[in-house]
Amino acid sequence: MTSANPSAIREAVEAQRDFVTRLFDRLRADGLDEPGVSRDPYGPGEQRGHATAAEAGRSLGLAIGHDPAANLYMSWAGSAPDAPAVMMGSHLDSVPHGGNFDGAAGVVAGLAAIAALQRLGITPRPTVTVMGIRAEESVWFEVSYIGSRGALGALPDGAMGARRRDTGRTLAEHIRECGGDPDALAAGVRHLDPAKIAAFLELHIEQAPSLVAADRAVAVATGIPGNFRYPNAVILGQHDHVGLPRRFRYDAVMAGAEFAMALDALWEEHEARGIAMACTLGRFHTDPAAHGLTIVPGALHFSLDVRAYDEAVLAELDERVSRIIAGIEQRRGVRFELGAKARAAVGPVDPAITAALHRGAQALDIPVIDLGSPASHDAAAFAAAGVPVGMLFVRNENGSHNPREAMTIDDFLAGTSILAHWLAETVA
Amino acid sequence: MTSANPSAIREAVEAQRDFVTRLFDRLRADGLDEPGVSRDPYGPGEQRGHATAAEAGRSLGLAIGHDPAANLYMSWAGSAPDAPAVMMGSHLDSVPHGGNFDGAAGVVAGLAAIAALQRLGITPRPTVTVMGIRAEESVWFEVSYIGSRGALGALPDGAMGARRRDTGRTLAEHIRECGGDPDALAAGVRHLDPAKIAAFLELHIEQAPSLVAADRAVAVATGIPGNFRYPNAVILGQHDHVGLPRRFRYDAVMAGAEFAMALDALWEEHEARGIAMACTLGRFHTDPAAHGLTIVPGALHFSLDVRAYDEAVLAELDERVSRIIAGIEQRRGVRFELGAKARAAVGPVDPAITAALHRGAQALDIPVIDLGSPASHDAAAFAAAGVPVGMLFVRNENGSHNPREAMTIDDFLAGTSILAHWLAETVA
Repeated sequence: MTSANPSAIREAVEAQRDFVTRLFDRLRADGLDEPGVSRDPYGPGEQRGHATAAEAGRSLGLAIGHDPAANLYMSWAGSAPDAPAVMMGSHLDSVPHGGNFDGAAGVVAGLAAIAALQRLGITPRPTVTVMGIRAEESVWFEVSYIGSRGALGALPDGAMGARRRDTGRTLAEHIRECGGDPDALAAGVRHLDPAKIAAFLELHIEQAPSLVAADRAVAVATGIPGNFRYPNAVILGQHDHVGLPRRFRYDAVMAGAEFAMALDALWEEHEARGIAMACTLGRFHTDPAAHGLTIVPGALHFSLDVRAYDEAVLAELDERVSRIIAGIEQRRGVRFELGAKARAAVGPVDPAITAALHRGAQALDIPVIDLGSPASHDAAAFAAAGVPVGMLFVRNENGSHNPREAMTIDDFLAGTSILAHWLAETVA
Repeated sequence: MTSANPSAIREAVEAQRDFVTRLFDRLRADGLDEPGVSRDPYGPGEQRGHATAAEAGRSLGLAIGHDPAANLYMSWAGSAPDAPAVMMGSHLDSVPHGGNFDGAAGVVAGLAAIAALQRLGITPRPTVTVMGIRAEESVWFEVSYIGSRGALGALPDGAMGARRRDTGRTLAEHIRECGGDPDALAAGVRHLDPAKIAAFLELHIEQAPSLVAADRAVAVATGIPGNFRYPNAVILGQHDHVGLPRRFRYDAVMAGAEFAMALDALWEEHEARGIAMACTLGRFHTDPAAHGLTIVPGALHFSLDVRAYDEAVLAELDERVSRIIAGIEQRRGVRFELGAKARAAVGPVDPAITAALHRGAQALDIPVIDLGSPASHDAAAFAAAGVPVGMLFVRNENGSHNPREAMTIDDFLAGTSILAHWLAETVA
């Protein structure tokens, strides 16, 4: 069991306050793009973040490495290098004009946990690696978990041809520019062998206000949602003149509104049955080249993300969405072209790790809550590959994916203490 | 009464088939902007159309004139020049990538009617003027009836500052470039005195399929709808992460969808009560700078056009829309910012003119239907100024404001025959 008592761990983590504050400040400066932070994946913002993280890792004496997806590995060599590795980390990219902590907190926490154990004079048996993961935010390439799935040789076919929505260039081009090897990724080369990983632990800010509402600093994840997505769907009706009577119209906005209301009702129904899910029409728009005050809209473009914690629920939702669409097509004489469909599997957490995190929280006297992850996370890609995973969420005001994201360093250090406690227990 | 018998009028109009075909072809070439035609108001497309129309007017010996709004007047001098003038015409601009006939047909019909009367050897008592009206399509400047209201000194305050949505330049700048006088318009100078106009007759393609459905070539208008409009409204919620539970969301798309469905229900209710109206959310979109697959949309921009044939109905609709908005704001925690509101008054048609058009149709053996105008028209601006107005609609497949607009020359000549019959009767 752990070679350090809980109060020593809290002190050793508290001693990292300056280290983590400076590192967060540096990362914010690297990605600054007012309002907020843009660490664009496989672009200048993320590149600077990776350089800063690597420099921090070097300052702790960690060995720096990379893989074909240009992920960053910062490794603390263990006394039993053949033992399955213990991994921590998260992604270093952000959404456009996002916050500084979404993703980066998991990398900083991993480094701080190592620094704390070093301060306590602990030598790990297995190698302990902090991973700075590439391109988690799917808003850019509309592909999930690029970095983590790339490391695990599990990217979907065709992913290298996905284009970044702002640059228009392919993922392959972007990866190559950052020193990666898109051909190896396309061939499914596996850099990480799941059998040689004992655990992957991800600390992340909470992206919903459940911890704020519960007045707690930290939550232990009970699971990571899977999803199905239509990144580029469109409803096709007919553009017509504003004076056209109702019976002659094929109005794409009215069809889209009916679709949105049906999804909202579906969600409300699941909420009432106590089944967690979410659905989001993040992009929802008439055609800028054709729309106008005096034109009945003939096209409505949208993206859809539907997520749940249970594969059976997801499958049922998929079926319900199809039936909703068929009904609207028939009633309103429009056509849904859904385009490519993306999926991410539900990510179960490891019960032993979850129990250890709860045990640590209790020993450290940090009250926690259980929480189904509101969002998708790289940990889900590790879980899908068979790696035992765990997640910690840190309280965060104002949601994430926006510049008003707000996590306190006190809360972060509370979460990091639980992580360090688990790490000490695991590597001893 | 008429100095020519119906069959002579039909023959004289039929004799204009080549003239009108060539003129339509020329106008299409002037505005060609595949797909369709763009006669952009106070821009190159409309300018070329005005030059072509003026050349056709000159070929009939008409006197060419202009006003501060750069409208085109083509006048056939009467033997009693002090008698109130008889006017015909419509607008020469189009929506972007629209059809060739929306607007232009009314100018071509006026010229063809004059040419037919000239062929019949008729000399008019009053002066007969065909007006090529500027900038009727409000999609460009988001101001209604710019040309006709400009001629009548009835533009709303601030109209000269409206910006064309594509060029970003003001109406004043655009008008000045086309030889007009924006300062005179801003001062409300009146070029046309309503008391000196006996009638304004506008022939226009039908912008709905009522004539197609009724298997008739021509309709006589029973009225022109008034409207209220919000060209630039927005629903403000809160941008958040895609994983946010439903109870924490302020989702602008869901609020907008509820708004659209409530408007649709309101329209359905009026339809069931036999009250003609229309409402259109022509522009309806999340914010391109912020939206994405993994972002709960915090803003939804839209335009709204609500139209009806009765001022009391319009007032009631205005009230109902306000109540719908208040309910959604309360239920969903969002805020509607409606922006500037535009209005156009209901345009009643003159009963004596309408009766004369029906009489002519019967004499010519052209079966017509009565039709509430689906769309707004310049004739409504003349009606609002106290000028007796009448309108004829010509059958048109596939709606208007799109390149698939389709009117046959046979149907057009049928409508023009009724117009010429009325003109002959009126100017004799």
